[in-house]
Amino acid sequence: MPTLYLLPVTMSDASPRHVLPAYNLEVASRLRHFIVENVRTARRFLKRCDPGCDIDSITFYELNNHIPADAIPSYLAPMERGEDMGVMSEAGCPAVADPGAQVVGLAQRKGYKVVPLVGPSSILLSLMASGFNGQGFAFNGYLPIETADRDKAIRNLEATSRRTGLTQIFIETPYRNDRLLERLLHILQPSTMLCIGRDITSPEGERIESRPVSVWRKNPPELGKVPVIFLIHCY
Amino acid sequence: MPTLYLLPVTMSDASPRHVLPAYNLEVASRLRHFIVENVRTARRFLKRCDPGCDIDSITFYELNNHIPADAIPSYLAPMERGEDMGVMSEAGCPAVADPGAQVVGLAQRKGYKVVPLVGPSSILLSLMASGFNGQGFAFNGYLPIETADRDKAIRNLEATSRRTGLTQIFIETPYRNDRLLERLLHILQPSTMLCIGRDITSPEGERIESRPVSVWRKNPPELGKVPVIFLIHCY
Repeated sequence: MPTLYLLPVTMSDASPRHVLPAYNLEVASRLRHFIVENVRTARRFLKRCDPGCDIDSITFYELNNHIPADAIPSYLAPMERGEDMGVMSEAGCPAVADPGAQVVGLAQRKGYKVVPLVGPSSILLSLMASGFNGQGFAFNGYLPIETADRDKAIRNLEATSRRTGLTQIFIETPYRNDRLLERLLHILQPSTMLCIGRDITSPEGERIESRPVSVWRKNPPELGKVPVIFLIHCY
Repeated sequence: MPTLYLLPVTMSDASPRHVLPAYNLEVASRLRHFIVENVRTARRFLKRCDPGCDIDSITFYELNNHIPADAIPSYLAPMERGEDMGVMSEAGCPAVADPGAQVVGLAQRKGYKVVPLVGPSSILLSLMASGFNGQGFAFNGYLPIETADRDKAIRNLEATSRRTGLTQIFIETPYRNDRLLERLLHILQPSTMLCIGRDITSPEGERIESRPVSVWRKNPPELGKVPVIFLIHCY
């Protein structure tokens, strides 16, 4: 029975040994077929994990949002011939917030074995470090872009956290980080806890800080364009 | 500035090199103060990571649900003296579904640096392998024990997944796995997707399988007493 391995990759400027188990590199080095979000970054990642790897013997199948849904089944053709495959995202864990989930869903329908490997996830790492409720949480992806919709989404997340106790997690495209933070500090209640996780896993740049909104307001950070994840929790 | 490291530990029968980056073992080997859920398993884990480690030079502070909340501040006393500390759970990632979140919250209030390290999480690994929506998901912890309450909670999770599109994740105490599965297959709609993740990270025992409820009903598995995580998703 062929296996579909889900292989996390590094994020930020972290080295593979910083964020990936040795076992992952063993698995990666024996696979010859990878479904990837971006071929160039996938090649670079494999070379970094194993500078001696024979990259030309590897076949890459690029899967991103531009690929039509009816082309997905062809991606698993090597598995139909009995070969193991790997799925890699651009950064972090595949199939969590990227198109990889579609091929995983297909592999599940076909009854193939699916094996996820351990790796960095800014969702999980920021949740651990926030000190917020980890017994219950929700990841909501991106908030709406339009201001009125986004403001409403922020109010809804705060209300949901107050009602359910679930920590609410969301992200933003880096160039909109500062605008989102400004709205968060404007809209959220002073006592609501806000955790800002910056450049997760970066040896130098990582900062994960939880403060009440009232404290953030006195000294709002400039986030700039690093990857940021936001968590809110009401007690 | 002292740092509080959040150190994941192995789950199931996986070896450290299978699920933990080499960097974690370096960090673990230089810490002398650990807040742990269970001292015995923490000692055994550190010995397994580094058979040569001087376990007697390490101080353990046991933190579990029996510890009164007002005792928590004393746990960070070594950090007040400028020393780094580590937090370890019994299994998997600390501070996600265990009392470690309380000391993390305190370290955040005191302005200490909090650094989460990468490790295995059955929530994240099962989500990756499910093929379900990873752009939005909620972890709900344990369902209620009493049958009527639990049945209602199952209906609510299914309705929430249908309304919001968020994958709904939950766990059960192992000896109640089979009873919960029986209720799930009874209550959920035939077309609802159910992923059952068994013994995550176990080299031999791991199985993560997504099927429509109608398919599971024809051939319900016997889960027994291994750790299981459940995910539901409605299209």
